[in-house]
Amino acid sequence: MRPFHLLFSTLFVCLAAGIGQKSTINFNGTGLLLASNGAAAQIVADQDDWPAVLRVCDDLALDFGRVMGTNGSVTLLSNGTTSSFNSSMIFNVTRRTTYRTSRNAYSKGGVIIVGTIGDSAIIDGLVAEGKLDVSAIEGTWEAYLSAVVADPLPGVSEAMVIAGSDRRGTVYGMYSVSEQIGVSPWYYWADSPQQKHDSIHATYVTVVQNSPSVKYRGFFLNDEAPALTGWVDAKFPPSPYGPGFNADFYKTVFELLLRLRANYLWPAQWNSMFNVDDPRSQPLADEYGIVMGTSHTEPMDRATKEWTVFGEGPWQWNLNNESIYPFFVEGAERAKPYETVLTMGMRGSGDTALGAGIETDLLESIITAQTQILDGIWGNASVQDPDTVPQMWCLYKEVQGYYQAGMQVPDYITLLWTDDNYGNIRRLPLQNETDRIGGAGVYYHFDYVGDPRDYKWINTVQLQKTWEQMHLAYEREAKTIWIVNVGDLKPLEQPISHFFDLAYDMEIWDKDSVPTWLEMWAAREFGPAVAAETAKLMNNYSIAAGRRKFELVDPTTYSLIHYNEADRVLGEWQIMQATAESIMGSLPTAAQPAFFEMVYHPVTAGYVFYDIMISSARNNLYAEQGRNSANTVAQRVLDRFAQDHRLTAEYNGLLNGKWNHMMDQTHIGYQYWQQPMRQALPGLKYIATLERSLAGDMGVTIQNTNATVPGDDMYHTLSSNVLTFTPFDPYGVSSQWIDIFSMGTNTFGWNITSNASFVSFSQSSGAISPNSSDVRIYATVDWGNCPTGSGIVMINISSSQSADSQYMAQTEYGTQYSMPQLMLPYNHTQVPSSFSNGFVESDAHISIELEHYSAITSNSSAVSYNVIPGLSRTLSGVTLFPVTADSQSTSSGPALEYNLYTFFNSTAGGVINITIITTASLNTDPARPLKYAVQFDQQDPQTVQYIIDQPAGANPLGWDAAVSDSAWMSTTNFTYAGAGEHTLKVWALEPGVVLNTAWIDLGGILPSYLGPPESMWVS
Amino acid sequence: MRPFHLLFSTLFVCLAAGIGQKSTINFNGTGLLLASNGAAAQIVADQDDWPAVLRVCDDLALDFGRVMGTNGSVTLLSNGTTSSFNSSMIFNVTRRTTYRTSRNAYSKGGVIIVGTIGDSAIIDGLVAEGKLDVSAIEGTWEAYLSAVVADPLPGVSEAMVIAGSDRRGTVYGMYSVSEQIGVSPWYYWADSPQQKHDSIHATYVTVVQNSPSVKYRGFFLNDEAPALTGWVDAKFPPSPYGPGFNADFYKTVFELLLRLRANYLWPAQWNSMFNVDDPRSQPLADEYGIVMGTSHTEPMDRATKEWTVFGEGPWQWNLNNESIYPFFVEGAERAKPYETVLTMGMRGSGDTALGAGIETDLLESIITAQTQILDGIWGNASVQDPDTVPQMWCLYKEVQGYYQAGMQVPDYITLLWTDDNYGNIRRLPLQNETDRIGGAGVYYHFDYVGDPRDYKWINTVQLQKTWEQMHLAYEREAKTIWIVNVGDLKPLEQPISHFFDLAYDMEIWDKDSVPTWLEMWAAREFGPAVAAETAKLMNNYSIAAGRRKFELVDPTTYSLIHYNEADRVLGEWQIMQATAESIMGSLPTAAQPAFFEMVYHPVTAGYVFYDIMISSARNNLYAEQGRNSANTVAQRVLDRFAQDHRLTAEYNGLLNGKWNHMMDQTHIGYQYWQQPMRQALPGLKYIATLERSLAGDMGVTIQNTNATVPGDDMYHTLSSNVLTFTPFDPYGVSSQWIDIFSMGTNTFGWNITSNASFVSFSQSSGAISPNSSDVRIYATVDWGNCPTGSGIVMINISSSQSADSQYMAQTEYGTQYSMPQLMLPYNHTQVPSSFSNGFVESDAHISIELEHYSAITSNSSAVSYNVIPGLSRTLSGVTLFPVTADSQSTSSGPALEYNLYTFFNSTAGGVINITIITTASLNTDPARPLKYAVQFDQQDPQTVQYIIDQPAGANPLGWDAAVSDSAWMSTTNFTYAGAGEHTLKVWALEPGVVLNTAWIDLGGILPSYLGPPESMWVS
Repeated sequence: MRPFHLLFSTLFVCLAAGIGQKSTINFNGTGLLLASNGAAAQIVADQDDWPAVLRVCDDLALDFGRVMGTNGSVTLLSNGTTSSFNSSMIFNVTRRTTYRTSRNAYSKGGVIIVGTIGDSAIIDGLVAEGKLDVSAIEGTWEAYLSAVVADPLPGVSEAMVIAGSDRRGTVYGMYSVSEQIGVSPWYYWADSPQQKHDSIHATYVTVVQNSPSVKYRGFFLNDEAPALTGWVDAKFPPSPYGPGFNADFYKTVFELLLRLRANYLWPAQWNSMFNVDDPRSQPLADEYGIVMGTSHTEPMDRATKEWTVFGEGPWQWNLNNESIYPFFVEGAERAKPYETVLTMGMRGSGDTALGAGIETDLLESIITAQTQILDGIWGNASVQDPDTVPQMWCLYKEVQGYYQAGMQVPDYITLLWTDDNYGNIRRLPLQNETDRIGGAGVYYHFDYVGDPRDYKWINTVQLQKTWEQMHLAYEREAKTIWIVNVGDLKPLEQPISHFFDLAYDMEIWDKDSVPTWLEMWAAREFGPAVAAETAKLMNNYSIAAGRRKFELVDPTTYSLIHYNEADRVLGEWQIMQATAESIMGSLPTAAQPAFFEMVYHPVTAGYVFYDIMISSARNNLYAEQGRNSANTVAQRVLDRFAQDHRLTAEYNGLLNGKWNHMMDQTHIGYQYWQQPMRQALPGLKYIATLERSLAGDMGVTIQNTNATVPGDDMYHTLSSNVLTFTPFDPYGVSSQWIDIFSMGTNTFGWNITSNASFVSFSQSSGAISPNSSDVRIYATVDWGNCPTGSGIVMINISSSQSADSQYMAQTEYGTQYSMPQLMLPYNHTQVPSSFSNGFVESDAHISIELEHYSAITSNSSAVSYNVIPGLSRTLSGVTLFPVTADSQSTSSGPALEYNLYTFFNSTAGGVINITIITTASLNTDPARPLKYAVQFDQQDPQTVQYIIDQPAGANPLGWDAAVSDSAWMSTTNFTYAGAGEHTLKVWALEPGVVLNTAWIDLGGILPSYLGPPESMWVS
Repeated sequence: MRPFHLLFSTLFVCLAAGIGQKSTINFNGTGLLLASNGAAAQIVADQDDWPAVLRVCDDLALDFGRVMGTNGSVTLLSNGTTSSFNSSMIFNVTRRTTYRTSRNAYSKGGVIIVGTIGDSAIIDGLVAEGKLDVSAIEGTWEAYLSAVVADPLPGVSEAMVIAGSDRRGTVYGMYSVSEQIGVSPWYYWADSPQQKHDSIHATYVTVVQNSPSVKYRGFFLNDEAPALTGWVDAKFPPSPYGPGFNADFYKTVFELLLRLRANYLWPAQWNSMFNVDDPRSQPLADEYGIVMGTSHTEPMDRATKEWTVFGEGPWQWNLNNESIYPFFVEGAERAKPYETVLTMGMRGSGDTALGAGIETDLLESIITAQTQILDGIWGNASVQDPDTVPQMWCLYKEVQGYYQAGMQVPDYITLLWTDDNYGNIRRLPLQNETDRIGGAGVYYHFDYVGDPRDYKWINTVQLQKTWEQMHLAYEREAKTIWIVNVGDLKPLEQPISHFFDLAYDMEIWDKDSVPTWLEMWAAREFGPAVAAETAKLMNNYSIAAGRRKFELVDPTTYSLIHYNEADRVLGEWQIMQATAESIMGSLPTAAQPAFFEMVYHPVTAGYVFYDIMISSARNNLYAEQGRNSANTVAQRVLDRFAQDHRLTAEYNGLLNGKWNHMMDQTHIGYQYWQQPMRQALPGLKYIATLERSLAGDMGVTIQNTNATVPGDDMYHTLSSNVLTFTPFDPYGVSSQWIDIFSMGTNTFGWNITSNASFVSFSQSSGAISPNSSDVRIYATVDWGNCPTGSGIVMINISSSQSADSQYMAQTEYGTQYSMPQLMLPYNHTQVPSSFSNGFVESDAHISIELEHYSAITSNSSAVSYNVIPGLSRTLSGVTLFPVTADSQSTSSGPALEYNLYTFFNSTAGGVINITIITTASLNTDPARPLKYAVQFDQQDPQTVQYIIDQPAGANPLGWDAAVSDSAWMSTTNFTYAGAGEHTLKVWALEPGVVLNTAWIDLGGILPSYLGPPESMWVS
């Protein structure tokens, strides 16, 4: 791995780099002037170069105009043959015909000569003249070289020369200049503002940009309704068969892909036919230089809908191969002229399984027939050469089961492994699979429709997870194809950029790279002034939104009463939203739409969404507790619901409706896996505030319980007026709260007294009216004045009101109940001075972020623990590098070691439960399932294989919960001998195991989503 | 049983009868004038008669005043001894001292001479003079005789004479006159208006009213908070120990009991001490003639709270009998001067079990100790004579387990059997238990706090069930004590009256008596003009409220989509409410408070409650269906919730707050068995009406499904736009509905077309705006034009709107969905002409009200089937009389037989399920559990024992569901050979089995609460 930090810091200062690209441009006046006020850049190419190249000359000229105010010019030199560009599809679609064709009109601006080695007489001439050395890239895939060359052409003293090893190499070289001068790949699709510069110079540097890490890098427009389809319906005329996914739409997609240095596309397929809806689309794609494919479920380059519209009989090979065979033939023949990766194999109709069982023979016979078809069209030799007729077989869902059942596929077909639709790769090449000539790839998801739940609203991709999974894929040699399902495309700008930057050059992005990448991304999209703050914000967002898909968050997810979890999580969102608001306010108007789309909207909509869910939960809890404030909270939910709508409307209305319908995705009101047709709130409960509680006007509750006193409920002893705090000790929370609230119709005064001077209250008396806010009081133990040992403090909370009738005087706490009392148990503990560098138990548990180990035993050169910041629901992931290392054992492998101190004394033979939280990653090698081991004190280590694979490509046991929770949680138990010092050891036994958190439970852990906050560390 | 119908019709015409009493008064001017304008009745008694009698003389005089405007006078004649009445407690409390003591002031009014045989010199004189023959009642319990006697006293030519066999006999005789002249027993407690008359005459008739059917008839004020306690707190000064349940309160209760012809009271005990709170209360009770007791859980006449306040140590006999023994002694000694039924035995503290197991020895030793105490105070002979020292042992809950475990109790102790707290008696005397000299009784519930749920808001007592259960108790010789738990007393006026009327003379109320009784009750309480309509209303209310306690009704109870159940049930309540409203409007002002309290409020509050629950369910369903109207329905729920509060406030504010706090009982917001502290609505779901559904503006759904089209939901095939009706046939519902509704933001036109001329629609086109009401359309098959056989009609429902943009034109049904279609299957069937007098299958089921049998086989003189109208959740109960009959068998017992015709053809070996619904009654004889048998066609009859008793006094299996549902539901299955004629036979095999309904299921029965409506009958 290269030392990339230095590289980045250099790049970042001058800010003239495509992300992950080497810099060739500067704005500090040194080198060759390309453009300045009054001097427009001049792009020169050979008119016989690829249409893909000639088209981007035009883009580059326009990009100079975007940045400088004056477009560059394009001169296409002829070598004497007939000009072909006017007849190409590309210009039919783009309708630009303003190219110069002679070299005699050079103006003051700098010259940029672009061309493809072997396809450009200019470039080939420079090479022949010895002015340009392209040996580093010649004959390679999608590489380019950029240099400043003296006297490249007659009358040109110096020019920037960009030479591509192939057409896309040239294109990427040009778009790198576009990106460096300040035009984001997203300038159209996300309205990224152009960076403005006084002058642009080409640095005197020769840069070689080698072939990308991954050969085919693309995305899949999928499940593209309601948002993308609604937008297309509104913006483009319909096709004869359905929505208007026509060439005018696709040209924007092709350009985006190329600017992102991608090259591959699975087109929209839910209700469209790429090749049929608009006959211009496929030739246009090819002229742009886009490699087309069809999705995993659409063999032989034919859309599913083509069979629906044109097919005859059932989509069942065993029943109807006579009709399906010619259908396949037509697809392959249609694809022949174009760069295409052909999908092989077959699934059932509409993204379903081929059949109920694993029918390997059937599928093998299908692939044999398909191969026969390809042989007839391309000839056997070409078909077996993946560079000529690339083919892929996607092992999606049950198809993976066919492979595992031993199905044989030709070596030259790329095996496209998949994730579980939730971003966890299910299988990667084994050691003996890495030399297949077709190689392997990964089909990944940023958007999904299916069990356990769709996620297709706003971005929920955790970038660290993308890095970790794709890094694993890369190191495991799955790098022929990376294709990611991006749903509607639009709300996923950021993870798409990240994905393609990794795919383009995986080597330069290491485990710590996400914050760096984010800062570069933010600088490019919104400008350097807000880059650092935006990057930090989006890193936090990535963790917060990645903890659990929004679609799976409901009022029950986060605990309102334990660990202040819901308040804490909502507080994080609130701070993120305020930050987004503040950054937005600091931006120039031109930058605001992009910031709104990519930062402000997801952060604010996420906050509003969380507020709706948590406030709905609060409303329900408060209603059950009889609080008057339940109704106020209900109104808050309704207000937030209205705000959610305003945010959607604002998005759809942005820039005079440019993105109308792009935010149409419903996201509130999920009833099962599929999207709700309509937005609907969780149930809100209303209290009869005109009637007093049967237990009087004053209600009291405390942290960690649903119960209230006075009065009865199902959470405390019948007829009891007493609630008991979780015990206090010096190593636990410093205070716990008491809520006092109105559950009546009269104003009352309240007063707290206790029988201990060492317990203080943040407030000890007050008055509450029926419309008052609830009062939260913190009870704190002053350990300096607290006696040693244990005890219980009694707290009385009295209500008083001016009795205006005998009835009121007798029913201060209703007709059946009495004054609330709280019991506050305390344990004044003290760790011995001999204990250090470890965690201390409180409330019968210890919670550990596993990166906070006391020691590591024997990290070796072969394998070592590494912390991946942010790869967690809470803090970080700890994992073994290299990811290609061998399996480890408790005897020889390194262990993470934690010193612990406990005060809790259970009876002899007591049990301690140790739950280890890992990321939701899956086994990618059936023979080496993910495992860890755990050891408590000197007891035998226990090995935990926490993912139990299932046959036939089915997901492992417990998968629904794991992907919903973004974590596997597995528990072992050990004997607990009693209070004192203890040691915990944890081993990751396989690379790919990402350890997050440990919960050590002596019975004190309370239900929550994220678990107890980390315990106190004694240094 | 007497032929009572004739009796009632006679009584009812002249309307001058106490309910269940023989008439002695008329208003048609015949007989002895008692009072008229200017002539006040003159009541004459012996001043040495019982204080109870003297006090009622005063009541009777006042009652004449209530009716005539001028009070009667009371003359207490002295036989020369010292007058005692001024010193009695009774007059200390009532503070009336206006009695005449000489006979020389007779005015023009008629004379009523009252007195107790043996305690009244006047009566004894008349007897001695031969003017009065009391031989029919002399020496009996609580009997009286009424006659018009010539020359009873010097200067009196004719007088009405009421002679009691004992003090309460005399009292009942006098109060019978009160009731006949138009003063309801409830004049104070329910504000019953007095009937006004021009003149009142004593009919020339001699009437003997024998001893009541049941010896001790009383109620238990229990769980008397928040309502009764709140009212007492507001109206009476507190006692030194708690709420002010003092003698001023109790005198109103004593008078009520006596006017109701009851004699027995278990006082309020939740937070009060009858004997301690106010030392006047116990002597006062005795002077009124009220027999005091303590509840089943309070032995030796001491309140539970007495131990809490005065006891020392734990309430555990085995640990603390040294303290408990003297506590018992004090109780018995304190009770000695008064008429008391002593509670024997012991339970745990606060209405809980004595211990975890059945400790028979412990309890026997307790009773031995208690008997020892009584022996010491009364002497052994008295203690063994239940007429002298009446004692009872209540077999409540687990205590029944002690008895069943063989615990021996002395013969002279009354065994007080109990119901299950839900009105189902758990045990009655067996044949060999009926000759115990202490006899047996029943402790019954009209109000309850406990599992599965409290019921303590408004009246939910089904009068037919009270009759059926208490009739059984009576016939089974449990008639020494009837005590009913009435909670707060007030909202249960009607069932209390009914209970005491049954207890007073069970012989005259037969199985059909409830409507008759209700009409007499309504005439007494509100006047004859509204009696018939009010009786019908309250009979309907009794069934509707008795189907399921309000507290157990929630939004999931009734089906919104199947059988129109929720709409049908809510419609019944709506009609009842309108009737109550209409009757209320027709009443004079003076009668309105009583009508409000006893009819208008429960009916209206019940309607509002049902509307809240059903509309909440509708809101939730509509929100899930994406209907705009969900929000309108939510507002309806909120409006109804406000109305519930207004009704409560109106009740509490009635008559300047006379009953303030009496309606404080919470009833909405149950979370578990115990009452909610506060009223809270079920969750309401709100739709984002500013956003269009993903499936467009128009939604369509049909009966029997939650699914809607277009669009996806979990109730129909993914991506399908088709819904299918339940098949139509000529024997099923004549039409099914289609709902068309807005789920969007645009107005649309809709149009229904079908491919069949024989299907008609109540409306076939229209327009719906976002704010329009949903449209319900009925699809009906015209069988006259329908082809024979089966088929499927296709129905299209199209939406159209004026497309103002390309987007709208393309997304009429959203971006992913298509035009809704409905499939309407029909089966044009026809029963053969040979089939008659039976039910016809439709939709794969037959539903039968079991009173609609085709024939009865062999009703015998020993046993016969009888229909009890209204004893059901739907129509009636069918049961065997006499209830003391022997067990029956399928070979010799009578069977109910039903002719059936089915069209449904299942595969060979198909199964038919037959569910029989019976009332929730329990086994009352462990050796003879309730059973029925059922037979389908010629297959072997199957016997079903549907209640499986549990040991240790526990409730039977499935009891929670049975009492919640007010029904046992048990299912047998038979082989179904196919379409054609079939026969069902049902046998009740034990008296006490009450058969309601049969559901014969071939797979077509859909979930609902009440089951399918009755199938079509072919005569």
